[in-house]
Amino acid sequence: MKTHQMQILRESCAKNGPLCVGLDTDPSYLPPEVISLYENPSEAVLAYNRGIIENLGDKAGCCKVQIAYYEAMGLNGLKTYIETLKLLKKYKIPCISDIKRGDIADTAKAYARAHFSGDFETDIITVNPYMGFDTLKPFTEWCASAGKGMFVLLRTSNSGMQDLENQKLSSGAVLLDLVANELNRISDEMKAIFNTEYCSPVGAVVGCTEEENARSLRNACPNLFFLIPGYGTQGGQARIAAILLEKAGGTVNSSRGILCNWKKDDILEDKRNKNALLLDDIVQSALRAASTAKKELLCAKTELST
Amino acid sequence: MKTHQMQILRESCAKNGPLCVGLDTDPSYLPPEVISLYENPSEAVLAYNRGIIENLGDKAGCCKVQIAYYEAMGLNGLKTYIETLKLLKKYKIPCISDIKRGDIADTAKAYARAHFSGDFETDIITVNPYMGFDTLKPFTEWCASAGKGMFVLLRTSNSGMQDLENQKLSSGAVLLDLVANELNRISDEMKAIFNTEYCSPVGAVVGCTEEENARSLRNACPNLFFLIPGYGTQGGQARIAAILLEKAGGTVNSSRGILCNWKKDDILEDKRNKNALLLDDIVQSALRAASTAKKELLCAKTELST
Repeated sequence: MKTHQMQILRESCAKNGPLCVGLDTDPSYLPPEVISLYENPSEAVLAYNRGIIENLGDKAGCCKVQIAYYEAMGLNGLKTYIETLKLLKKYKIPCISDIKRGDIADTAKAYARAHFSGDFETDIITVNPYMGFDTLKPFTEWCASAGKGMFVLLRTSNSGMQDLENQKLSSGAVLLDLVANELNRISDEMKAIFNTEYCSPVGAVVGCTEEENARSLRNACPNLFFLIPGYGTQGGQARIAAILLEKAGGTVNSSRGILCNWKKDDILEDKRNKNALLLDDIVQSALRAASTAKKELLCAKTELST
Repeated sequence: MKTHQMQILRESCAKNGPLCVGLDTDPSYLPPEVISLYENPSEAVLAYNRGIIENLGDKAGCCKVQIAYYEAMGLNGLKTYIETLKLLKKYKIPCISDIKRGDIADTAKAYARAHFSGDFETDIITVNPYMGFDTLKPFTEWCASAGKGMFVLLRTSNSGMQDLENQKLSSGAVLLDLVANELNRISDEMKAIFNTEYCSPVGAVVGCTEEENARSLRNACPNLFFLIPGYGTQGGQARIAAILLEKAGGTVNSSRGILCNWKKDDILEDKRNKNALLLDDIVQSALRAASTAKKELLCAKTELST
């Protein structure tokens, strides 16, 4: 094994910029007049995803597909999920499946099989570690043996992260520090397996919602590649994201900010008012939003380093 | 709204006993000679599930379906998952879908839609709270409005629960105490909505792996109905389960202990050695195991109360 998906992702982000386009494509993120052109909403979602993927070019380093929105459309939704993964593969765009699974023993093994092989096979997944570190092992084994990648939830971008993740322990640390330590340990183990100076196949999810916190987590985990949610619609600023992009780097997710750009895109005002939007209109609008986000993130990076 | 699924589950357990049959039906839990009779492994799994469900009668209070094993079989697996839920509905057996989803904001709403409506609609789900309590709200809203139920992970049955769930906080409590407090609060809120003295639609997952811990959690959450994993194959004893069945009560899951009973069932030795097992053999063996487990749990309950 010479390489792994996290390394491929990192190289893609170095080449195409740190933006991760979040294909959290809920039907409500499409205009009704576009949805009505398709047999069912999941077909419309697939068409929107296809338009973005086929034209993404160098606007983003990767895509993230949030499985919840596809599950919510039932079996048809999961067919669209599968087709979306296939398109990303075809266009050689690294794919993060945001599944946040987490379970024990044989069940965790089943989830690893489910998302690292078969119909739902993807490059990189997200994992919830809060049931304990034994829940991570079946996934790290696939990273080691099949070159897959995983992002482990460390500091999420919701306000509720204060409830548990950020709880102060009797040792003086906060809970998520324990996750950070464990990820550093796993990461070192993995780097030894892959005999590489590059990032390990195991990264961390760190929301870009608090500057001080971002800096301390970046310093605590200098060798982990980060998946950075919370930018854009969720209020995270490019400046904070740029801090998290230092050292081993990362990729900054924007979902609704891109998928729903047509709702506020000046160029589309007339068509929007007439309910006359076409698929290509919203695809082009999403691509413009991606270009803008990419530029903003690169500028923030430059500002931080100068 | 007069009732909710947790109340229906509780009544079923009062009538048919505390056992929850875990339909974590991995193809490796079936003999190869049975699997070979079907077009694909997921068809064989469905046949096994059907056999158990159609003949379950008063041997168990409910069934739990672990979605990971169905996801691992891809789209065909999820079709089997859907058919299994339909069978449970047909036979009026309360169904817990063990999905352990947990995410934020719109994504959590999508997961709630995914599993409380549409193709994957179920009665009760399991939820992972460790990203924060805001992640629970979209699910509790469905409980309040549609009478659905949910079990929130509190103390899981894996050894890794020590890593985070059981961490000592600066306040002197352990992390999972915070989850218990929040569940008590939500539960009171829910009981007010349903205007009932019965259990709330929000229960907790508490593994039966430690006696002292079981007693303190049962006392800390006297009004929560518990889903109790860890009994049987995972080493949890009926005596500890019985402690967790006190006060508001609960249901005790056994999966492999029932599904894989044919592997050690004396009655089947000859057929097993000849690789001549039939579907009905393993179904009847599973049902015998369910009867035995039910009896053991009821005895442990009786012993504890006398």
